[in-house]
Amino acid sequence: MVETAQTRVEHDLLGDREVPKPAYYGVHTLRALENFPISGIPISRYRELVRAMAFIKLAAVEANAELGLIDNRRAEGIALACGEIIAGKLHEYFVVDVIQGGAGTSTNMNANEVIANRTLEILGFARGEYETVHPNEHVNIGQSTNDVYPTAIKLALQFYIDTLLKSMAYLREAFAAKADEFQGVLKMGRTQLQDAVPMTLGQEFSTYAVMLEEDEARLAEARLLLLEINLGATAIGTGITAHPDYAAAVCRHLREDTGFSFLTAANLVEATQDCGAFVQLSGVLKRIAVKLSKTCNDLRLLSSGPRCGFAEIQLPPMQAGSSIMPGKVNPVIPEVVNQIAFEVIGNDLTVTMAAEAGQLQLNAFEPIIAHSLFKSIQHLAAGCVTLADRCVRGIVANHEQLRASVERSIGVVTALNPYIGYANATQIASEALETGAKVYDLVLSRGLLSKVDLDRILDPLSLTMPENQPLSYALTPRIPVSREPSEGAITPAARGVA
Amino acid sequence: MVETAQTRVEHDLLGDREVPKPAYYGVHTLRALENFPISGIPISRYRELVRAMAFIKLAAVEANAELGLIDNRRAEGIALACGEIIAGKLHEYFVVDVIQGGAGTSTNMNANEVIANRTLEILGFARGEYETVHPNEHVNIGQSTNDVYPTAIKLALQFYIDTLLKSMAYLREAFAAKADEFQGVLKMGRTQLQDAVPMTLGQEFSTYAVMLEEDEARLAEARLLLLEINLGATAIGTGITAHPDYAAAVCRHLREDTGFSFLTAANLVEATQDCGAFVQLSGVLKRIAVKLSKTCNDLRLLSSGPRCGFAEIQLPPMQAGSSIMPGKVNPVIPEVVNQIAFEVIGNDLTVTMAAEAGQLQLNAFEPIIAHSLFKSIQHLAAGCVTLADRCVRGIVANHEQLRASVERSIGVVTALNPYIGYANATQIASEALETGAKVYDLVLSRGLLSKVDLDRILDPLSLTMPENQPLSYALTPRIPVSREPSEGAITPAARGVA
Amino acid sequence: MVETAQTRVEHDLLGDREVPKPAYYGVHTLRALENFPISGIPISRYRELVRAMAFIKLAAVEANAELGLIDNRRAEGIALACGEIIAGKLHEYFVVDVIQGGAGTSTNMNANEVIANRTLEILGFARGEYETVHPNEHVNIGQSTNDVYPTAIKLALQFYIDTLLKSMAYLREAFAAKADEFQGVLKMGRTQLQDAVPMTLGQEFSTYAVMLEEDEARLAEARLLLLEINLGATAIGTGITAHPDYAAAVCRHLREDTGFSFLTAANLVEATQDCGAFVQLSGVLKRIAVKLSKTCNDLRLLSSGPRCGFAEIQLPPMQAGSSIMPGKVNPVIPEVVNQIAFEVIGNDLTVTMAAEAGQLQLNAFEPIIAHSLFKSIQHLAAGCVTLADRCVRGIVANHEQLRASVERSIGVVTALNPYIGYANATQIASEALETGAKVYDLVLSRGLLSKVDLDRILDPLSLTMPENQPLSYALTPRIPVSREPSEGAITPAARGVA
Amino acid sequence: MVETAQTRVEHDLLGDREVPKPAYYGVHTLRALENFPISGIPISRYRELVRAMAFIKLAAVEANAELGLIDNRRAEGIALACGEIIAGKLHEYFVVDVIQGGAGTSTNMNANEVIANRTLEILGFARGEYETVHPNEHVNIGQSTNDVYPTAIKLALQFYIDTLLKSMAYLREAFAAKADEFQGVLKMGRTQLQDAVPMTLGQEFSTYAVMLEEDEARLAEARLLLLEINLGATAIGTGITAHPDYAAAVCRHLREDTGFSFLTAANLVEATQDCGAFVQLSGVLKRIAVKLSKTCNDLRLLSSGPRCGFAEIQLPPMQAGSSIMPGKVNPVIPEVVNQIAFEVIGNDLTVTMAAEAGQLQLNAFEPIIAHSLFKSIQHLAAGCVTLADRCVRGIVANHEQLRASVERSIGVVTALNPYIGYANATQIASEALETGAKVYDLVLSRGLLSKVDLDRILDPLSLTMPENQPLSYALTPRIPVSREPSEGAITPAARGVA
Repeated sequence: MVETAQTRVEHDLLGDREVPKPAYYGVHTLRALENFPISGIPISRYRELVRAMAFIKLAAVEANAELGLIDNRRAEGIALACGEIIAGKLHEYFVVDVIQGGAGTSTNMNANEVIANRTLEILGFARGEYETVHPNEHVNIGQSTNDVYPTAIKLALQFYIDTLLKSMAYLREAFAAKADEFQGVLKMGRTQLQDAVPMTLGQEFSTYAVMLEEDEARLAEARLLLLEINLGATAIGTGITAHPDYAAAVCRHLREDTGFSFLTAANLVEATQDCGAFVQLSGVLKRIAVKLSKTCNDLRLLSSGPRCGFAEIQLPPMQAGSSIMPGKVNPVIPEVVNQIAFEVIGNDLTVTMAAEAGQLQLNAFEPIIAHSLFKSIQHLAAGCVTLADRCVRGIVANHEQLRASVERSIGVVTALNPYIGYANATQIASEALETGAKVYDLVLSRGLLSKVDLDRILDPLSLTMPENQPLSYALTPRIPVSREPSEGAITPAARGVA
Repeated sequence: MVETAQTRVEHDLLGDREVPKPAYYGVHTLRALENFPISGIPISRYRELVRAMAFIKLAAVEANAELGLIDNRRAEGIALACGEIIAGKLHEYFVVDVIQGGAGTSTNMNANEVIANRTLEILGFARGEYETVHPNEHVNIGQSTNDVYPTAIKLALQFYIDTLLKSMAYLREAFAAKADEFQGVLKMGRTQLQDAVPMTLGQEFSTYAVMLEEDEARLAEARLLLLEINLGATAIGTGITAHPDYAAAVCRHLREDTGFSFLTAANLVEATQDCGAFVQLSGVLKRIAVKLSKTCNDLRLLSSGPRCGFAEIQLPPMQAGSSIMPGKVNPVIPEVVNQIAFEVIGNDLTVTMAAEAGQLQLNAFEPIIAHSLFKSIQHLAAGCVTLADRCVRGIVANHEQLRASVERSIGVVTALNPYIGYANATQIASEALETGAKVYDLVLSRGLLSKVDLDRILDPLSLTMPENQPLSYALTPRIPVSREPSEGAITPAARGVA
Repeated sequence: MVETAQTRVEHDLLGDREVPKPAYYGVHTLRALENFPISGIPISRYRELVRAMAFIKLAAVEANAELGLIDNRRAEGIALACGEIIAGKLHEYFVVDVIQGGAGTSTNMNANEVIANRTLEILGFARGEYETVHPNEHVNIGQSTNDVYPTAIKLALQFYIDTLLKSMAYLREAFAAKADEFQGVLKMGRTQLQDAVPMTLGQEFSTYAVMLEEDEARLAEARLLLLEINLGATAIGTGITAHPDYAAAVCRHLREDTGFSFLTAANLVEATQDCGAFVQLSGVLKRIAVKLSKTCNDLRLLSSGPRCGFAEIQLPPMQAGSSIMPGKVNPVIPEVVNQIAFEVIGNDLTVTMAAEAGQLQLNAFEPIIAHSLFKSIQHLAAGCVTLADRCVRGIVANHEQLRASVERSIGVVTALNPYIGYANATQIASEALETGAKVYDLVLSRGLLSKVDLDRILDPLSLTMPENQPLSYALTPRIPVSREPSEGAITPAARGVA
Repeated sequence: MVETAQTRVEHDLLGDREVPKPAYYGVHTLRALENFPISGIPISRYRELVRAMAFIKLAAVEANAELGLIDNRRAEGIALACGEIIAGKLHEYFVVDVIQGGAGTSTNMNANEVIANRTLEILGFARGEYETVHPNEHVNIGQSTNDVYPTAIKLALQFYIDTLLKSMAYLREAFAAKADEFQGVLKMGRTQLQDAVPMTLGQEFSTYAVMLEEDEARLAEARLLLLEINLGATAIGTGITAHPDYAAAVCRHLREDTGFSFLTAANLVEATQDCGAFVQLSGVLKRIAVKLSKTCNDLRLLSSGPRCGFAEIQLPPMQAGSSIMPGKVNPVIPEVVNQIAFEVIGNDLTVTMAAEAGQLQLNAFEPIIAHSLFKSIQHLAAGCVTLADRCVRGIVANHEQLRASVERSIGVVTALNPYIGYANATQIASEALETGAKVYDLVLSRGLLSKVDLDRILDPLSLTMPENQPLSYALTPRIPVSREPSEGAITPAARGVA
C-alpha cells in the first residue's frame, strides 16, 4: 500500500490502511468509522464532548510539559491545536459514531489523531508524520482512554448542565410570574380528580415554580459528583505509565483552564470503574422529567375544553390543531414536553443497564451512557425554554369559569368541620350533591351557624391561607366526656416513647 | 404581509406568515418547525415514514376519485406527486422535528402541504395557490391525522421490519455456520459460571442461531398486528366526513399499492386510540435486545483473556483496543451490540410510558412512539449485520484450551450418577477438587466401575447427546426396599389427578 | 451430631445438620432457608408453583417407571406423595424464600425432600431414611433443576393465566354490558383532551371491551410459547444422566396428567438457557397493564367532578373518600388498578434485567422472573375482577351533562367540511368560540347550507356512525381547475410504484 | 341492622355495616378491606409505617391539646393509644392491603379507627362509641390523609433507611477487611474482560468498599429530603380546618418524639402534591442496586471455575449447588443479591410511573410508591447483611492462580511504554501473544532495556501504585523535532481559552 495523491498510508496492529489525505484523523478513527455504522450520528454532534476532549488533552500536555515529559515545541503545538478545537474548529473530523464499542477508545484515538495531525501542520510537518508528533506517544502521554474519556464526559456534562440549569430557571421564572399574576384568582382545588377545597390559581402555578426550584437544587448537587475525576488513573487506576506527580498537575490545569473545581478521586481504581455519578445524574434527570411531565399533564387538564372540559385556563394557540377539525387548537407544547419526559425516563433505563453491565476494572459501556445523558439534557433544556416561551407566558385564566366553580362547589363544606363536625358536614354535603342546593344555604337553613360566622369562615382569604384561618376555633366539646379529664401533661416520656 | 421575491404569504387560524418561495411545505409546517426545536432531527430521517405518508395519500386519492369525491385532474396530480415522494424525491421538505407535539398533525400537514404544492406545480400552478389544490380540502379528503398518522407508522414499520428480519436471518446464518464448524469441538458447559458438564462448542453456537430464529418468528407475529389499520376512522373513529365506502376502498388501494395485507379494524373508535400493536412490537424488540445482549455477553466471556480468562474462542481483531496498552484487542463489536440492546430496552420504556399516557379517544404521544420504534429497529438491524460481518464470521476456536478444560474438569462425574449414585459421586468430586486428581482415576482406583464401562460412559459423544447416552441404565436398586413393591400401575386417575 | 427427640441428622457436602423431626423437608432446604432471609415470603405463597413441581415429579416417576429405571413400589409411593401435594397438602413445607439464589435448585431440592420424606412415610419408613428413598437418587432421576424448575414455572403460569384470562373476560363483559346500555347516549369525543366530534358513550365503553378482547388474544398466544419445555435436558440440555427415551416419555405423561399440550423443545441446549418465553409473556402483561391503566385514567377523568370536572359518568361510591372532606367520594377502584399496572410495568423491567443477565448455559435468575410474573398475573387478575364488580357494573351516565356538552360544542362543525370547506368551517368555529354562538345558527345565518341539509348532516346517528353518513357528498368543485382534467386512470403502475 | 353479640354496627356515608366486635378498626377500614383484595399483604407488614402513623397521631394530639383544640382527657387517652402502637401493640388491626386506592385514606382511617377505639377502651368506653372519641373529629383534628400519609411514609423511611445504612456499612467493612487481607496479592487487572495491567486483589476489593461508602453518602443525602414534611397542609396545602399555629406545633412535637429533624415545607400546596423526594430516594436505591449487582457480577466472575474459569477467588460454599451435578458449588449468595438488585430497579420504575401519574393537588398513587420503596430498602438491607456474612467474609484468594496470571500476562508491556514507546511495545505484545514467549524475555533479547531497568520498571509495587512509579521518566525524544522548540509558556490565555 502506497501513498497516492488522495491518500496517505497509516499503520496499526491490523496492518496498513489508506486514509484520505485531507483528513485530520488517522487509521484508528478510520477503523472505528467502519466498525460502528450504527446511528449515523458522529460524536461531533456533541460539541461539548469534543471541546471537553480538547480541554483534557490541553491540561495533559500542560502537566506533562511542566513535569519535563515533553519538549516545549511539541507541547506548544499540541496546546495550540487543542485551543483551536476548544474554539470550535476541526469538529467535523470527530466522526466516530456516538454508539460505539471499545469503551470510548475510538473517541480518544479520534481526538489524539486530529490533535497530532493538526499539531504536525502547526509545526510545519505533514499529516501522518507521526514519528514527529505521535497520537499515542505524544498527545496521549500519561493518559488512557479509561481516564480521559470519563473525565471528558464529566466536563461536557458540566457545560450541558449549565445550559439546562439556565433553561429550568427560565421556565421557573415564567411560572412564578404567572403565580403572581394569578394570586388573587380563587378556584377549586382537586384531589384524585374530584373537587376538593378552594385555593388560588396563583397557588397552583406557584407549585410548578417550586418544583423546578427544587429540581434545580438537586441537579446542582448531582453535578458536584461529576467534579471527581480520575485523570492519572490511566488504564485501571494504578496510574501505570503516568508520572507520579501527573494526576495532581493535570487536575490543577484542568481546573484552571475550565474554571470547574475538579478534584482527583481518592481511590483511582474505584473511580475508573465506577459509573455512580452518571447513574445519580440520570436519576435526577428522570426526576426532572417526572415533574415536568406531571406539570404538563396538569396544564393539559386545566385547559381541557373549550366547552366540555375543565376550561380553567387557556394555553396560547400555537398552530392549527387538526387537519380535519376546523378551529381546533391543541396543547401541542405541553405534549412535546411530555414526550421529552418519556424519552428521558427511557434514557435513564439505558444508563441503568449500561452501568450495571460494567465488569471488573472498567465499564465498557460509557459511550451509550454519554449519548443518553447528553440527549436527555439537551432535550430537557429545549423543552423548558419552549414551554416557557410558547406556552406558559401566554396562559390566560378563564375567570368566569373559575369563579363559578367555587360558587357551585360542595367542597367548601370542609371548612365547617371544626364548627359543625364531620358527621353534620357529611350530611350537608350529601344533600347538596343530591339536590343541587348550595352548602351556604343549607347550613343557614338548618341553623347550624349564624350568617356572620358563616361569612367569616367562608371568606376566600381564610380558605386558601392557613395564616388567615379564624383563630377562634372552638374546643370540640359537642359530646361531653363522661368522666373528669386527667390533668397530666402529654409527654413522650409519660408513654415510654424515646 | 405581502408576497416578495423570496417569500409567499400563507394563512392559518393564527394569521399570515411568509413562507420561503422554494419551499414545498406551507404555513402549518412552518409553525411546527418553530414550535418544536427539540432534537434537530427532521422526520425525513425516517425515509420510510415519509414514503408511507405518500403511499397513504395516494391510496386516499385513488379511493376518493373512485367514489367521485375528487375530479380526475386533481387526483392525477396528487397521485403523481405522491409517486415522486415514494420514489424518494422531495424528502428534504419533510422538516418537522421527530419529537413533536400535536399527535402527528404536523407530520400530516407537512405531507399535505408538500403534496399540494407539488401537485400545483405538476398541474401548472404556482405553489401556494391552494384555492386550486388545497392541502386540507383536496389532499386530505376523508382523512384525519388520527387515522393517517398511525397507519403511516404501521406501514413504515413494515418496511423497517423487513430489513430487521433480513438482518436477523443474516446473523442467524453466521451463527449456524459456526455451529456447524464447531460441532465436534468438545468443551465444558457452565451453569451459574461454574463448570458443569461437557458439551460441544457447536451446541453452544447453535443456541444463538435458535434464539434468533425464535425471535424472528415473534417479530413476524408482531408485525401482523400492525396490518390492522384505521383509515376511514377520521378524527375519533366515527368516520365523520368520510364517505361510507371510503374505509374499504382506501384499504384495498393501500393493499394493492404496497403489497401488504392491510385490514380495516372492526371497531374504529377503539383502533384510533389503541397503541397495543406498538407496545407489543416494542416488547418483542426488547426481547430481541435481551437475547442479543445475552449472546454478546457470552461472546465476550468466552473470548476473555488472552491469558487470564476463559480464552475458549478468539474474536477477530477489528481495531487496536487501547490508547495505552500495546497489543490489546477488545471485543468492540459485541460491546456495541450490547449498547444497542440497552438503548432498545430504554426505548421500550419510552414507548410504554407514551402508550399509557393516551387519553380518551386518542393517544397524542405517537410521535415519540414512532421515533423510539424506528430507532430501535434500525439500530438492531445495523447491530445484527455488524455482529455477523465483523465478529461472528471471524470467530476461531482455541482447540487446545477447550480440550484441556474437559480433561481437567470435575463435571464429568455427573455422568456417573446413574451408575454410582449421587452420594458416591459427590465424594469423588470433592476429592478431585481437593487433590487435583482426575475423576477418571479416582473412580477406577476405588473400583466403582470397570475401565470398559467408564470409557463407554465418558465417551464424548455420549456426554453431549441424549440419544447417544448408554441404553443400559441399571435399575437403581443400590439399597433394597424392605417390603414388596406394589404392582398397581401408576395412573393419574389412581391419584385423583384430573 | 446425633438424632434427638426433636431432630434428625442429615448430611450434605457441607457436613451434618439437625433437621426438625416433623419437617418433611431436609438439609438442603434448611440450608436454603438460612441462606436466603430476604423477603420472608415462602414459595408456598405460589400454590400453583408447588403443585407444578409435584406434577413434574409425578410425570418423571411415571416415565422412569415405564423405562424400568425405578421399581414399582418406590414409584407408586412417590406418585402418591406427588398426588397429595397436587391436591394441596404439605404446602407448608415449601419454605424456601421466593427470592433465592441458585437458579431454583433450592426449590427443586425442597420438592425432592418433601416428596422423598412423604414417600418414606407412605412406604412405612421414617423421614430421613434416604437410603430407601433418596431425594436425588430416586425422586430426581433423570432430572436437573435446570429442566424441572423452568418447566414448573411454565406449568404454574398456565394455571395462573387461566385465572387471568377468566378475570379479563369477566371485566370485558362488564364493559360490553355498559357499552350496550350506553349505546344511544350521545356525547362529545375528545382528542388531546380538547373537544373533538360527537360519539356515543356506548362507543366509548366498547373500546374498553375491545382492548381487553385483544389483550386476551395476545395472552392466549403468549401462553402457547410456554408449552415448549425442556424436561430431559437435565443440566445444560445435553440430557446427561437421562434415559434417551425419557424426554419424550415425561412430556407425554405431563401432557396427560395436566391436560396442557406440552412439547419438548427441538434444541434442548437452547431451551435450557432461554428465557424468551418469559420475556414475551412479561411484555404482554405489561401491554395489558398499559391498557388497563389507560382505561382507569379515562374512568377517573370522565367521572371527575362532581361539579368542577367532566362529570359525564358517576362511579359507584365504595367508601368515604376523605378523612377531612365530608361527602367526598373518590375513584378508589380505578386508582388501585392504576397502581397494579405500575407494579406490573416495574415487574416487567425486573424480568427484563434478569433475563438479560443469563450467562452461557443457564439463566440463574429465574426465581426472580417467576416471582415477578406470578405477582403480576395475580394482581392483574384481582384488579380485573375488582374493577368489574366494584366499579364498572355500577357506573351511571350523567345524561344531562352529556346532552348539554354536545349542544354547546363547536366540534360538530367538522361534519360540515365536505359541504362548506375547511376554510369556511374554520371561520365558523372561530366565531362560535369567540361569541358563544352555536355553530348551527351561524351556518344558517350565513346561508351556507339550507336548514334541511343542515339537519340531515347534523343528525346524531350520522355523526357517530360512518355507515349512516349522507351518501350525497358533493364533488369538491368550489374552485374551478383552470385546465382540462386528464382522463388517465390513476394506477400505481402509471406512477412506477411497485 | 342491629348490634349482636359478635358485631357492632357502624355507619358511614354508604350506610350501616356490622363490624366484628373485637376489632379495633371500624367501618371505613372494613370497606377498604373489601375494596382492595389485591396482594393479601396487610399494611402491618410494614411495622415502621404503622409506628409512623402512631407517631404522627401522637404529635398531632400533643399539638392540638397545646392549642386548646382538644380536652386533656381525650388527648391523654389518644396519646396513650398511640404510645401502645409505637411500642408494637395492636398492629394486627392494621389490615388494609398494601396496594390500595384512595391515596392512603384507608391507611389513615385505619389508624384513626384503631386509635379511637383503643382510646375509648382506655377511657372506659366501649369500642364504637364514637360520639365520645371520634376517629375523624378527635383523632384526626387538623389533619388530612394528604398530609398525614406522606409524612408517615417519610418517617417510616427514616427508620428503614437507618437499617439499610447500617447494613451497607456492615458489608462495606467486610469488603474493607478483605481489601486489607488481600493488599499484597498481585493479579492482572482486566478491562473489557481482556487482560490489562497488574494490580492487587486488595485494590480490587477496596473498590467495593469505596462504592458502598459513596452510596451510603448518597443515601444519607437523599434521606435529608425526606425531612421536609407537610403536616398542617391538610387537604391540599391551604391548611383548611387546621389551626394557624398547628403546622409549627405538630412539626416540633414530631421532632421531639422521634428525634428526626423534620421541617415544615415552605410551600405546603407544592409539598402536598410533590413526590420528588420519593423519586430521588428511589433513584439512589437504584444506584445502590446497580453497584451491588455489578459487585456480585464481579464476585461470580472472579470465582468462576473451579477449573475452567477465572478461579482467582473462592466463595465460601453455602449449599450443594445442584440436584444432579455432584460436588458442584454455586455462587448462590451473589446470585440472590443480583436478583434483589433487579427487583429494586423494577421497583424504581414503579415509583417513577406512580410519581408521574400525580394530578393537580395530589398524587393518589403514594401507596404503591410506599410499598415499592419499603420493599426495596428491606430487601437491599437483607441482601447486604447476607452478602457480608454468607459470602464476603469467607472469600479466599487462589494465590497460585493469581501469581501465574501475572507471570504469563502480556499486559505488563504497558509499563514499558514510556521507555520503549507504544509502537515497539505493540510489536513485543504481538510476538508474545503469537509465540507464547514472555514479555520480559523479549525485551531483554531485543536489547531494548537493561535487565536492571527492566526489573525496576516491572517491580510489582511500582506497577500497582502511581506513587511508586519510577521518577526518572525520560523525556520522550526518540524522534528529533526538526526545528527549534518555541520558548513561550503554555498558558490558556495564550490560546484564548477562558
